[in-house]
Amino acid sequence: MSDPTQLTALAAAREIALGRLTSEALVHALLERIDARNDTVRAWTYLDRKQALAEARLRDSERPRSPLHGVPVGVKDILDTHDMPTGHGSPIYQDNQPSQDAACVALLRDAGMVVMGKTVTTEFALRNPGATRNPHDPTRTPGGSSSGSAAGVADFQIPLGIGTQTSGSIIRPASFCGVVGYKPTHGRIMRNGMKILAESLDTIGCMARSVNDANAFASIMEASPIQRLADVGPSPSFAFVKSPAWPEAEAGSRSAVKEAVDRVRQAGGSVVEIELPPVFKDALEAQDVIMTYEAWRALAYERYFHLDKLSVALKQAVAAGGDHTRERYDWARNVQATCKAMFWQVFQKFGAVLTPAAAGEAPKNLAYTGSPNFNRLWTMLGVPCVTLPGLVGPAGMPVGIQCVGAAGRAHETLAHAAWLEGALQGRLQDHT
Amino acid sequence: MSDPTQLTALAAAREIALGRLTSEALVHALLERIDARNDTVRAWTYLDRKQALAEARLRDSERPRSPLHGVPVGVKDILDTHDMPTGHGSPIYQDNQPSQDAACVALLRDAGMVVMGKTVTTEFALRNPGATRNPHDPTRTPGGSSSGSAAGVADFQIPLGIGTQTSGSIIRPASFCGVVGYKPTHGRIMRNGMKILAESLDTIGCMARSVNDANAFASIMEASPIQRLADVGPSPSFAFVKSPAWPEAEAGSRSAVKEAVDRVRQAGGSVVEIELPPVFKDALEAQDVIMTYEAWRALAYERYFHLDKLSVALKQAVAAGGDHTRERYDWARNVQATCKAMFWQVFQKFGAVLTPAAAGEAPKNLAYTGSPNFNRLWTMLGVPCVTLPGLVGPAGMPVGIQCVGAAGRAHETLAHAAWLEGALQGRLQDHT
Repeated sequence: MSDPTQLTALAAAREIALGRLTSEALVHALLERIDARNDTVRAWTYLDRKQALAEARLRDSERPRSPLHGVPVGVKDILDTHDMPTGHGSPIYQDNQPSQDAACVALLRDAGMVVMGKTVTTEFALRNPGATRNPHDPTRTPGGSSSGSAAGVADFQIPLGIGTQTSGSIIRPASFCGVVGYKPTHGRIMRNGMKILAESLDTIGCMARSVNDANAFASIMEASPIQRLADVGPSPSFAFVKSPAWPEAEAGSRSAVKEAVDRVRQAGGSVVEIELPPVFKDALEAQDVIMTYEAWRALAYERYFHLDKLSVALKQAVAAGGDHTRERYDWARNVQATCKAMFWQVFQKFGAVLTPAAAGEAPKNLAYTGSPNFNRLWTMLGVPCVTLPGLVGPAGMPVGIQCVGAAGRAHETLAHAAWLEGALQGRLQDHT
Repeated sequence: MSDPTQLTALAAAREIALGRLTSEALVHALLERIDARNDTVRAWTYLDRKQALAEARLRDSERPRSPLHGVPVGVKDILDTHDMPTGHGSPIYQDNQPSQDAACVALLRDAGMVVMGKTVTTEFALRNPGATRNPHDPTRTPGGSSSGSAAGVADFQIPLGIGTQTSGSIIRPASFCGVVGYKPTHGRIMRNGMKILAESLDTIGCMARSVNDANAFASIMEASPIQRLADVGPSPSFAFVKSPAWPEAEAGSRSAVKEAVDRVRQAGGSVVEIELPPVFKDALEAQDVIMTYEAWRALAYERYFHLDKLSVALKQAVAAGGDHTRERYDWARNVQATCKAMFWQVFQKFGAVLTPAAAGEAPKNLAYTGSPNFNRLWTMLGVPCVTLPGLVGPAGMPVGIQCVGAAGRAHETLAHAAWLEGALQGRLQDHT
């Protein structure tokens, strides 16, 4: 058969269920790919080849426990694993061996999936980058904070990776690396065993190579039945929103949006540009207040006992949180609540919102994971977001296009994203 | 000087700051009290006398870092401590030594407070009781899940204890043991390093022997400045709400409410009985759906790897969570959101709500921590709750009275609770 590293997760699981592939053979092929590419991409912070193969063999000995049985996953290294160290991207936790799995990790094991290893995160999922490089150009950042999961999935080292997002840590690296990134509705995947950064914002999600894979994997981590994505009909309606960060949009994202809009229309869909209501003008500031206020407190142990082991970048990133008053935080949470209530009032006649996934192509800078400003609003709203690959910028690097929906309407959002994925693939087929 | 175990936390810290008491002497006196009473009360799951004294001496060598400098605290054993084991009330975590402190624990250390030891929790803060007994009658439950913190504070073994509440786990044991219990607004004390049970509900708070102590301690855990409680004026206004659980109210709580209302009026305040709007009829059911749906998922690791080490009571308590559909959970979260929005619309002309803290006196049953039904609505709303001691039931056991406010108006709620505390103490003085 053809190279199993190229299979989507659902396709691989199907081959395994049909007896045409084993989980062990799949893991073996992925390990070969990692061996060939690891010096360049550096997606992993922990990988024990024997352990991964042993877990795959265990899965091969079982009857399928789910539609993703036997599929290996990369786990972002801020999620506890009872059998692998968990470093949080920080020297403070260099030798940290948790005694439990994060709830989402246990749920994927319960579904017969294989934990391949731990993927690189920035320091506590904030700004300070890890070792990972963009697989399409190793002089560029993969984005952060879910750097290793995005790069690993993009480089065919793993079909699925867990990511988390507090500002733009799933959607941005997915966009930079050219994979599907999915941030579910806030609070739907439980965070027991995750290193909390800002609990009003932190959201567990995933990297995948198709919307269907993302839907299946997220459903497993949510412990909900996997539902086949609904057909959105021949002419779905999208609202295009520039978002408060639009002035930062680079050529890559401007042309990606234009191409996506063209492609939606060619495929029969409609796109109407919409302005955000005035209350959204405070959204980015409010998100920053919430994040820094909460993160400064959440990292109290590290600040008190290990200040010398925190990076300057991290200390700078959360410093404002120590200065914000409770009243300022209350203001920010009120902006959040108001924007949440307004969002779907404005957009409810549309199937989904189209908006840039990032400012543009991945910066040519390994010390900077890029701006999260095209993601922070949507994270604050707690709404489901999907970024889709298929478009490229002026330097030939991937540029994502983001599909956003209403809180609690993740299925509808994913269904629209799947339709758009088809429309974008049609475009690519026209040009190749 | 008089027995330091009888001091409130603020009074003890004042004595320490003035050089009339040392943290070491205070810890020593508390350890003597524990030695005398531990066989009866059993509040502690971990206590290392040398370690507590050494930490106290360290604090004695410093200049005061906060108005609670040198004051020892009992930490509920679902909160991580980097220097003490953390058992979550479960044999699964018998040897669990976290590598970090929970954020709230680090914040109290940063304030110069002393971690005395870990206090007994029910299994994962759910129903299955630990070893603790009610200090007023060891044949009765201390309530749960924050059993050890409530009993320890009531028995003068510790001036302050950390509790957490998902249904009624702070207010109910505080009521049963006759101490002040304070559940702040949901989300104000960060939960990094806490064993999550149901993240839409879990709230960190405290047990104390005065409202001022609770205010100071919670402010430290929130990393906010300690504000002196405002004077609510001579005639504060209360709304009395029976709550959906009223049919369960026993003689002790019925008479406590009546006495509290009388006392408020005698002291110059007003009380008006108010009915909850019809939407609240679904509140208890919705809270149960949210809790079981989330807890079943949060405990995925324990269910998958250690099912045989979970108690029957725990498995029963979360079983429904595995059956609820996502749609059912969405329904419950919508009820929660609607009730939150309605609550203060109805009560905004009042300073606070008065309502029972528990069904009545502590049950004479060490296998049952009592019903949380007088707490579940308020926990679901995420609003600040304070229970006050001072009233007694027909068997002479403590019965609390609960003061509830609006989310984000914790200060106002505490100020009203402090006024009520004074009014109740006045009553007691009349009768003794």
